[in-house]
Amino acid sequence: MKYLFVLLLAGVTASAQVQKEQLNLMPWPQNVVVNNGNFTLSKNFKVNISGNPNPRIFGGVTRFLRRLDGRTGIFFEQGYISKLNEVPNAELQINCDKGGKIGLYEDESYSLDVKANKITINATSDLGALHGLETLLQLLQNDSKSFYFPASQISDFPRFTWRGLMLDASRHFQPVDVVKRNLDALAAMKMNVFHWHLVDDQGWRIETKKHPKLIELASDGLYYTQEEIKNIVKYADERGILIVPEIDVPGHASAILTAYPEIGSKVITLTGGTSEKNIQGTAIATYGIERNAGIFSPTLDPTNPKTYKILNELFDEVCPLFPGAYFHIGGDENEGKDWDANPKIQEFKKKNNLKTNHELQTYFTMQLAPMLKKHGKQLMGWEEILTKNLSKEAIVHSWRGPNEGVVAGQSLVDAVKKGYKTVLSNGFYIDLMYPIASHYLNDPMPKGADLTAEEKARILGGEATMWTELATPTTFDSRVWPRTAAIAERLWSAENITDVANMRKRLESVSFRLEELGLTHIRNKAVILRNIANNQNIKSINEFSNVCEPLKGYTRNKGGTEYQMYSPFTLFADACTPDAKDSLAFDEAVSQYLANKTPDNKAKVAAFFNKWISVNKGLIELSANAPLVQSILPLSKKLSDASQELLLVLDNKSTLKSADLKSLIEQCNTKEHADVELSVYESLKKLI
Amino acid sequence: MKYLFVLLLAGVTASAQVQKEQLNLMPWPQNVVVNNGNFTLSKNFKVNISGNPNPRIFGGVTRFLRRLDGRTGIFFEQGYISKLNEVPNAELQINCDKGGKIGLYEDESYSLDVKANKITINATSDLGALHGLETLLQLLQNDSKSFYFPASQISDFPRFTWRGLMLDASRHFQPVDVVKRNLDALAAMKMNVFHWHLVDDQGWRIETKKHPKLIELASDGLYYTQEEIKNIVKYADERGILIVPEIDVPGHASAILTAYPEIGSKVITLTGGTSEKNIQGTAIATYGIERNAGIFSPTLDPTNPKTYKILNELFDEVCPLFPGAYFHIGGDENEGKDWDANPKIQEFKKKNNLKTNHELQTYFTMQLAPMLKKHGKQLMGWEEILTKNLSKEAIVHSWRGPNEGVVAGQSLVDAVKKGYKTVLSNGFYIDLMYPIASHYLNDPMPKGADLTAEEKARILGGEATMWTELATPTTFDSRVWPRTAAIAERLWSAENITDVANMRKRLESVSFRLEELGLTHIRNKAVILRNIANNQNIKSINEFSNVCEPLKGYTRNKGGTEYQMYSPFTLFADACTPDAKDSLAFDEAVSQYLANKTPDNKAKVAAFFNKWISVNKGLIELSANAPLVQSILPLSKKLSDASQELLLVLDNKSTLKSADLKSLIEQCNTKEHADVELSVYESLKKLI
Repeated sequence: MKYLFVLLLAGVTASAQVQKEQLNLMPWPQNVVVNNGNFTLSKNFKVNISGNPNPRIFGGVTRFLRRLDGRTGIFFEQGYISKLNEVPNAELQINCDKGGKIGLYEDESYSLDVKANKITINATSDLGALHGLETLLQLLQNDSKSFYFPASQISDFPRFTWRGLMLDASRHFQPVDVVKRNLDALAAMKMNVFHWHLVDDQGWRIETKKHPKLIELASDGLYYTQEEIKNIVKYADERGILIVPEIDVPGHASAILTAYPEIGSKVITLTGGTSEKNIQGTAIATYGIERNAGIFSPTLDPTNPKTYKILNELFDEVCPLFPGAYFHIGGDENEGKDWDANPKIQEFKKKNNLKTNHELQTYFTMQLAPMLKKHGKQLMGWEEILTKNLSKEAIVHSWRGPNEGVVAGQSLVDAVKKGYKTVLSNGFYIDLMYPIASHYLNDPMPKGADLTAEEKARILGGEATMWTELATPTTFDSRVWPRTAAIAERLWSAENITDVANMRKRLESVSFRLEELGLTHIRNKAVILRNIANNQNIKSINEFSNVCEPLKGYTRNKGGTEYQMYSPFTLFADACTPDAKDSLAFDEAVSQYLANKTPDNKAKVAAFFNKWISVNKGLIELSANAPLVQSILPLSKKLSDASQELLLVLDNKSTLKSADLKSLIEQCNTKEHADVELSVYESLKKLI
Repeated sequence: MKYLFVLLLAGVTASAQVQKEQLNLMPWPQNVVVNNGNFTLSKNFKVNISGNPNPRIFGGVTRFLRRLDGRTGIFFEQGYISKLNEVPNAELQINCDKGGKIGLYEDESYSLDVKANKITINATSDLGALHGLETLLQLLQNDSKSFYFPASQISDFPRFTWRGLMLDASRHFQPVDVVKRNLDALAAMKMNVFHWHLVDDQGWRIETKKHPKLIELASDGLYYTQEEIKNIVKYADERGILIVPEIDVPGHASAILTAYPEIGSKVITLTGGTSEKNIQGTAIATYGIERNAGIFSPTLDPTNPKTYKILNELFDEVCPLFPGAYFHIGGDENEGKDWDANPKIQEFKKKNNLKTNHELQTYFTMQLAPMLKKHGKQLMGWEEILTKNLSKEAIVHSWRGPNEGVVAGQSLVDAVKKGYKTVLSNGFYIDLMYPIASHYLNDPMPKGADLTAEEKARILGGEATMWTELATPTTFDSRVWPRTAAIAERLWSAENITDVANMRKRLESVSFRLEELGLTHIRNKAVILRNIANNQNIKSINEFSNVCEPLKGYTRNKGGTEYQMYSPFTLFADACTPDAKDSLAFDEAVSQYLANKTPDNKAKVAAFFNKWISVNKGLIELSANAPLVQSILPLSKKLSDASQELLLVLDNKSTLKSADLKSLIEQCNTKEHADVELSVYESLKKLI
């Protein structure tokens, strides 16, 4: 009898059996088996580390403990871990064979085994163990009273060795804390490369002691000190992340030339003299930090020895800050206007038998390679560096696509066929506000291309690319996360993991959990909306933001001059994000209704219309005391008008002519208001 | 006819006349006159600077432009300002006679004159001009379509010269970004002293190159590098703020002694030898970083020359990082236990005719004064440093009160009567979660004390004191803001500005505006609640947090051992704040109802009860999938039970005996759940 009672009690308190489909793992591991039973967390949960890991594992486990304790509020007894075999009987045993080296091709695999009373992480290197800890955190489940890990066996390794995010710190400077929390997020998503775009027309962001003019004249006081860079490199190392710095040359050089106009390519012709004698001469142009967005002509002079002297000195100072083996020299978007107009440069081309500006640029690039090589760095550049004379050691960064008039990813295939290693960013331009599915399904391994195994091996992976013309420290995270997690999955998980709906479901949990690392993608939305609403209730405007998306591609900043770098980015478009929250739910409701016109399905669609009608009323009320709401009203009115009519349509009570109804819906297809578009337009159309 | 039409139109578009009472200025200026008319903002609003200011004004005005543009979304044409007389015809003219010196007694006055087409700020120093810009930002008004400043004349100056905030970076390390955004908030509130508590039992937070053991062994890797410190000092200077660093000695020394046990006071007696011969000896005690909160015995040995050698070397390294004229050496809470137990120290006291430990401590303190003086620093310390031998140059920091068994502020009066300058922190301990009114009404100038003008002049001002035993980087801001703004007003504004209700009204606007500086006091609440709610809807738990306050005084962390420094501070109490949002509104509703039992007034009270009943239901639902909600349920049930019965009471339908009703309400008077208390208990009591 007593025995039975104990059993029953066990039955009552045992946590529900978790199914594999319920797990919100991302990137999805290579192999996942869920078993019966659970490991339940308690105060005395402890971790032990054995083997020969790099000491970074201690910090990694301490952070793991703090995050798990923060989520669960359990008050673990173990606060820190600082040496091997500290707690031999700990429930979580981590074993690593060797210290992981930061860089490409390191063994990042791990296996994770959760049993009811013991958890084991085995990894070749501590980098794999760190990945295992992230997976374990994602495994966390709960019932109403306790937290537990489902018994399971996971073995895992990455598909690609280059899984990166590029942060543009030039257009809008992103302070150290923004960089650090994004490094944390990268580590959580098992990404291993942080490409730091440090120099562009809009600012030079590296303290350079030998060339202080660069920060004095070309940074607006916004730059990373060398110590901050070292500190960030260390922070990244502790999280298994390689940093690839970028100094973009010879184009995108407005900032450099603001400090050193004498190495620019632009010639200014002076005319003077007397009425008797006309004198012509040339002078050095002056440059200023660029405040707009776009492609600009300021370009280094590849024929001037001083150009190479300064670059060499800069590399001598900057390279030692970065222990990694790669240095990105940009090389993109040099249109050569100033080269064409400079007689001296034209002469140089002739003399050196350089037929095109592209060949001249390759000449330039090849001068840089040895400067980097002496610091043990391989040169990397955007795909424009690829010409016949380029050294085979260079890495080609594939970025152009239809928007630039070429086939997407073509340069990637070209590069590997010519023997270059390559990284894909085309299709991963997350600053352009395209839907997440487009990035998720963008595979660096081209389908249908006829590549040998050797050529395939040269495709290192991919990189999410976050340009910051329109992103400030307040909005940066919301442009990058959670979307980059889907890219992380593309780069880590098996090729056949491509179910968008399933990815979306898991992404919601990932997005929530990123908050614990300090990411601001969720919290800062309310901050922007409160400002727009002038501290009134943000319910209506928040609801409206759930069906609005920032204009996509390059359409928000028309001609690159609508917004300057100092413009306000505190607007409605800055609060909105791609994949607006309610659009998918509405589209599903519409599809269900069209497939099956039950009263229930009709009510679901009608609920959206009623909401949007009331949102419009709410916004009108708000606007009485909030000038920034005014620019949203015309769009909200259009959705409200369409909603009112569609309510009648649902009840077969609409008296509008078909053409008028169509034009009412068509009004919702506009980019004219507040730099956003209605994400439900396509679904609305389905109803007529 | 045409003329009339124009006039009418002008009448329609002109903004409403603002009354002085509507302005949300804080701290309230010394003189405010509101005139007829408004200055309306437009794209071409520009600023010009003239006179002889310190160049910090350029950064200050650029930040001002960015904030104003961010609020209004106007897209000002002027992005930056970097020299004098750049825009002679600008609408806003700023003139400063001289560069302001960071420190006490500088002229911080300004006058601000807003006319319909021109704004003028005149100030002796740029520090005054920066204050004027903050006032101008607070003057901003809007109607439905435009933003404007009401025509007005303001002349202003501070009442006290020391208006400070202390940040404890030892108990919980607060990274650079937390420090910086709090400096921004201080500047917005016209505060001018940042007291940086850098060393305590729980950690040494300053990089010391000559004594690397301090950071290696006593910081858990969490410390400010010297470059970061310099950078923060510069950041503060740019905002008119003096930094006063603190190294707390001779008590609170666990961290220092973890690195240098040989300068500790504790003696360990060893007993050994053989069976024939008993040998006794002494050894150096070892110490560890303290993880709990409280007063601990580790104390420096004031009789050991090495103590002074190390301190001297530390000051030599740390003092030059801080250009300010003051250095805080702590000196508090040395209970002398280890001194009493150390025969060598007792002998030293006898030999030097030091009768008490207090005298011994003064001996210690006086050894430090010349070490600081050689770096041009005056010594400051907590009030325990005050004894008869203390140099008159020292500043006495008054902090103890009834909780420490002494009369509040007594040490302040003692100090000034004995000829010392003093700063008040008693009554400004914002970490203790007391209501804002108590801090607001706490005047550094003691009422009724018989002080001469000279003695009064020695009262420099006051300082909000934020200890971080229970505050992490995530919660720090919400413990400090907006409450410190009320303290800022106490220290800046005229003595008779004491209307609490009026202050509360203005504080709401101040709190909202602090968000634009990156302060997280509002946004991070939702982050904590989302974690507790396990990413479910936070509406119920947020509503409940509006009637719950963290336990006050030292009651949350019983005995200092309930929470360790590594405990989770992601709990309900961490999301709650003093002056819970709904309690005042409820209390007003109750008072109105009791004064006048109209159906309307009854309905207002009943609405609260109905809300709390539904909140309880909501929390029960949440808890099914959120273990962290469980600990809140008992408290929410008590409020719901009381609410249900009180609804009956309102309708005269309650059948409970008076004693039972009383006990039902009394249940709401508890500190037993989730480290919070119900802020509406006193108001509930009024209803029975």
